[in-house]
Amino acid sequence: MALVVMKFGGSSVADANKMKLVANKIIAKKDAGNKIVAVVSAPGDTTDDLLQMAEQITPKPPARELDVLLSTGEMVSIALLSMAIDAKGYPVISLTGPQAGIFSDHQHGQAKVEKIIPNAILKLLNKNNIVIVAGFQGSNPSGDITTLGRGGSDLTAVALAAALKADACEIYSDVEGIFTTDPRIVKQARKLDFLSYDEMLEMACSGAQVLQSRSVEVAKKFGVVINARGTFSDNCGTIIASEKIIKKLSGRKKMETLLVSGITFDKNQIKFTIVDLPDTPGVAAKIFGDLAKVGVNVDMIIQSAAVDKKNDISFTVTKQDVKKAQIVLDKIAKEFSATRVECDEQVAKVSVVGVGMRSHPGIAACAFELLSKNGINIEMISTSDIKISCIIDEIDTMKAVKALHAGFKLSKKNEIK
Amino acid sequence: MALVVMKFGGSSVADANKMKLVANKIIAKKDAGNKIVAVVSAPGDTTDDLLQMAEQITPKPPARELDVLLSTGEMVSIALLSMAIDAKGYPVISLTGPQAGIFSDHQHGQAKVEKIIPNAILKLLNKNNIVIVAGFQGSNPSGDITTLGRGGSDLTAVALAAALKADACEIYSDVEGIFTTDPRIVKQARKLDFLSYDEMLEMACSGAQVLQSRSVEVAKKFGVVINARGTFSDNCGTIIASEKIIKKLSGRKKMETLLVSGITFDKNQIKFTIVDLPDTPGVAAKIFGDLAKVGVNVDMIIQSAAVDKKNDISFTVTKQDVKKAQIVLDKIAKEFSATRVECDEQVAKVSVVGVGMRSHPGIAACAFELLSKNGINIEMISTSDIKISCIIDEIDTMKAVKALHAGFKLSKKNEIK
Repeated sequence: MALVVMKFGGSSVADANKMKLVANKIIAKKDAGNKIVAVVSAPGDTTDDLLQMAEQITPKPPARELDVLLSTGEMVSIALLSMAIDAKGYPVISLTGPQAGIFSDHQHGQAKVEKIIPNAILKLLNKNNIVIVAGFQGSNPSGDITTLGRGGSDLTAVALAAALKADACEIYSDVEGIFTTDPRIVKQARKLDFLSYDEMLEMACSGAQVLQSRSVEVAKKFGVVINARGTFSDNCGTIIASEKIIKKLSGRKKMETLLVSGITFDKNQIKFTIVDLPDTPGVAAKIFGDLAKVGVNVDMIIQSAAVDKKNDISFTVTKQDVKKAQIVLDKIAKEFSATRVECDEQVAKVSVVGVGMRSHPGIAACAFELLSKNGINIEMISTSDIKISCIIDEIDTMKAVKALHAGFKLSKKNEIK
Repeated sequence: MALVVMKFGGSSVADANKMKLVANKIIAKKDAGNKIVAVVSAPGDTTDDLLQMAEQITPKPPARELDVLLSTGEMVSIALLSMAIDAKGYPVISLTGPQAGIFSDHQHGQAKVEKIIPNAILKLLNKNNIVIVAGFQGSNPSGDITTLGRGGSDLTAVALAAALKADACEIYSDVEGIFTTDPRIVKQARKLDFLSYDEMLEMACSGAQVLQSRSVEVAKKFGVVINARGTFSDNCGTIIASEKIIKKLSGRKKMETLLVSGITFDKNQIKFTIVDLPDTPGVAAKIFGDLAKVGVNVDMIIQSAAVDKKNDISFTVTKQDVKKAQIVLDKIAKEFSATRVECDEQVAKVSVVGVGMRSHPGIAACAFELLSKNGINIEMISTSDIKISCIIDEIDTMKAVKALHAGFKLSKKNEIK
């Protein structure tokens, strides 16, 4: 009997009818002869509603108490989903994160899963129960409730699949899988059958919102094969696994991979430039050290060549961090007598992702050419061995995505032979 | 340093502003040099909203899962109230029922507190924290979340006060204490300064809704002195304690008590009559045994004198139980060839409560006369040593309450000397 972990996002359990549909989906999988552990997120906008309630009390709620508050959203989901399954006559038990044995560190709001003790789940599964687990939450060594950050339910599902040595980990959402790019932008976007962990990570980090990147890291670490698929569809989704497993599953005999797997974009970007910094050692370390201290994540960095012992440093942060960054930068500009700090909010990042790049060095050049041909100016570039990201004017985002998607012929399966 | 348990009901924490008022109330008590444990209910109509969500899923939700769902209401309260106190710069920690060490039996929806292990609370108090505890909830020996039934937060507060050996247990609500009768009905109703446990119990069981009766039982058992008072008022409330303590606190030198303490009423009553039952032994036992089996609580019972070896049995149940009772009674009527089952929904119970009755046997006669003078027909009577209850036509309820309140001169302090 196979053990399947199924995870359903907030939009899949947003109201009573959807909840019942999800219950049926779980029951069908159970009837097919599987043991089921289902992980659920808070219904619809519940988490945002709870955040708003906190905001009405204080602009700076203590992180521990915010976690107590937010954890209730997933508890509502597990209770209601269990009721829906019980109503169909199937044995079912709900477990909160702490009850399910999910132990995290102390970092409220962004806690890391430290270990999972799945005894309670295993015991309930052995008694033939469907087990419904609250996503996004755990408890720290003091017994406090913690939450795992946005998208944390994906992490719960993958970590549980690893701890339970599950045969499958299915992540359901309102899209049918991972697409070559956002189908709302490019009609020809194609659902990918397979995607390697590394590609998924790059895509998750560069704007694709289907899977939380930390959950992909955990899946990679423990070799959990993820199937990202649609809640309200019976089509098979996208398998996310190691390149080796994909080769096996896809039945490809030779080392075949896609040249480029997908195009992502992210408008949640701000570009800062500090103009006329002294060209002396330690300046960059000071800037990025100070930003890190206040919790600002910096993405791309460019340092211009020095002219007259002065140079400029540009970098990008997400829009949430703009205020925190501005305060730090104004201080630094003063300290180093920089001319000024420029802040450009009208930027976006477009990225080309694919493990094929490793063996085909021409991809980057091809991407730059596609953008330039379409009159799109590249402001910053950063690359990894399987990704090329460019910062461009925000207004050009859709044009860039369409040009890259068409240029790399992603609407057709274009495998490297 | 005194330890005070403060309990705030749902209407006291219904929105952000009220939550902040409650926070200030707690802080003022802390500033006065007390250690504080505050117990809170779910905000406003939250519990009803959650019940409605469950109803949309299934008419018969499993009790275990309903408890998971309902327990989230109080968790929202403890988190928000802690945020409000933290925002004022005071150290504060919230605890769910299970985290606070409240252990119950397995009876979901109506669990009984079995023990309290207050170590976590004591530790936090010793570190100078204000401790906010979720009312109405605990965990059973399997680690499942349980709820303690309607009004269960009162029970949480009293049980914690007993376990912590608190110096005071203050139950705050939107009324200023216990009144001689409902002030919305009788303008002259007077707030009582003192009330014995037994009187409070009789009043709670016969319609007064300020305190949950089980919490009063626990208070009596462990000698917890309760102060029932108003959240949005600085007036002192009603002290509920043993007669001995009241004598001490009130400074009365002789054994003085009120003749009658209060008049209550309860419209949530249904009268059933089974007509023409055989006058043989075991019939009553069968009826009330079968009703008990399906969980129907019977209040008053009257059996008419037998005529032609037949008699009638009348009794009252609460409106919630009417459907369950009807099914049982139809079966019984058939079995015993009774003529019919009558169901009268237009009845109400009015009660006169006071420990003075023990030494003054004329009270019952006086009550009956007051009703009769006002043209009110008494359908059923039941008495205890400190209470007289009468079932009357529902339409006469207000008239009866006013007549009894005026007749026993409750708007003035009428002590027995």
